Amino acid sequence: MVRKGRLMGVGTGPGDPELLTLKAVRAIAEADVIAFFAKKGANGNGRAIVDQHVRPGTIELPLVYPVTVEMDKDGDDYRGAIATFFDASAAAIADHLEEGRTVAVLSEGDPLFYGSYMHLHLRLATRYEADVVPGVTAMSGCWSMAGLPLVQGDDILSVLPGTLAENSLAERLAGTDGAVIMKVGRNLPKIRRALTTAGKLEGAIYVERGTMATAAMMPLSARDESPAPYFSIVLVPGWKARP
Amino acid sequence: MVRKGRLMGVGTGPGDPELLTLKAVRAIAEADVIAFFAKKGANGNGRAIVDQHVRPGTIELPLVYPVTVEMDKDGDDYRGAIATFFDASAAAIADHLEEGRTVAVLSEGDPLFYGSYMHLHLRLATRYEADVVPGVTAMSGCWSMAGLPLVQGDDILSVLPGTLAENSLAERLAGTDGAVIMKVGRNLPKIRRALTTAGKLEGAIYVERGTMATAAMMPLSARDESPAPYFSIVLVPGWKARP
Repeated sequence: MVRKGRLMGVGTGPGDPELLTLKAVRAIAEADVIAFFAKKGANGNGRAIVDQHVRPGTIELPLVYPVTVEMDKDGDDYRGAIATFFDASAAAIADHLEEGRTVAVLSEGDPLFYGSYMHLHLRLATRYEADVVPGVTAMSGCWSMAGLPLVQGDDILSVLPGTLAENSLAERLAGTDGAVIMKVGRNLPKIRRALTTAGKLEGAIYVERGTMATAAMMPLSARDESPAPYFSIVLVPGWKARP
Repeated sequence: MVRKGRLMGVGTGPGDPELLTLKAVRAIAEADVIAFFAKKGANGNGRAIVDQHVRPGTIELPLVYPVTVEMDKDGDDYRGAIATFFDASAAAIADHLEEGRTVAVLSEGDPLFYGSYMHLHLRLATRYEADVVPGVTAMSGCWSMAGLPLVQGDDILSVLPGTLAENSLAERLAGTDGAVIMKVGRNLPKIRRALTTAGKLEGAIYVERGTMATAAMMPLSARDESPAPYFSIVLVPGWKARP
């Protein structure tokens, strides 16, 4: 009987290939198989970030998201399609694990911080040895690039999705010290209104593709109303006191 | 005239030396001076984590915290002592920058995520070139070690200090999806009561010294009432649905 393989969720950081950890580099170099999430026709950022560390001969397993852009994301059809996709991805990885291979699943940012990897971990970690290599999150990459500390001491930090309704977004922003708003995209005008209501538009910074070669940042108040790319974030500094 | 030096805030990650990024390793190896926060009589974790990457001949600049344990942390005396300390630390670093040296300030976790480095950055970045190398946060290290995803999709994550009053802690916990509670220490019994009030004690995980060789974790409900070490965290998973 073959000894079963090992699953590794490997954080690839926010985009700059130098922000890989030593542990991630080793995991990628030692893996028999590297798996990565991808959209149809594109290999995704995670795969590009690690390019120079993949050994020749490593098996590559792209996990291609189903086309769901036309679907209602709160609907049963969407949830069903995504669940089927994660089940099939876990099964494809399990085939390699059964053969004794080590499988590194690349995960942009940190694998367990809003990452798709967690859905594979939950499906496989009960049956196979599974380790997670944490990574630098996109938000850390963005506030470091901006040189903007959001929280200190006893401050509260809230990580909020831009998909929240305008009034709850405004309430949450008013009731926290620092905040990071994810999933900006088409929610940008709403986010700006919510920050204005909360009295926190001033000081808020818009960052897109943080730490990548094509990164851009500006005060949110200066950003035009066109939709933001998926990899964009709004940083809301929370602290005023300064020891 | 000497060309002025460069300041770098360098995240050293949660504790495991392999969780340094490639960029941090390079910054440390290239620095003329490494500065690090330390308590009297101890060099601190940040310095230990990077030990094998420091070139012989590198100037070392320990920044020794004033003894403040006896002081009221909300009091003016404490704030004054800390402000004086940061002013003096910034001045000591500026002396090297004026001589054209590159100074890497080690910062456990991520430099701008509740790190002392931010106080030096604010004092020096207007006068000198200053870059921040983000790091893996302690919370990422802890939830990765536990294999416990806290948030997904449109979830809200709240980072809360254990120093909050019990009723506001309970309210915050009830009103969020996932949560990370920092500064556990002597607040442990209060944190447990607040989680019970919020109906979220079940599932909460206690982690101390996450990713370090001496790491320990257990369900918070099973942890005894003795004070927790400074480097401990409580993880509260937020999501129930699973696609």
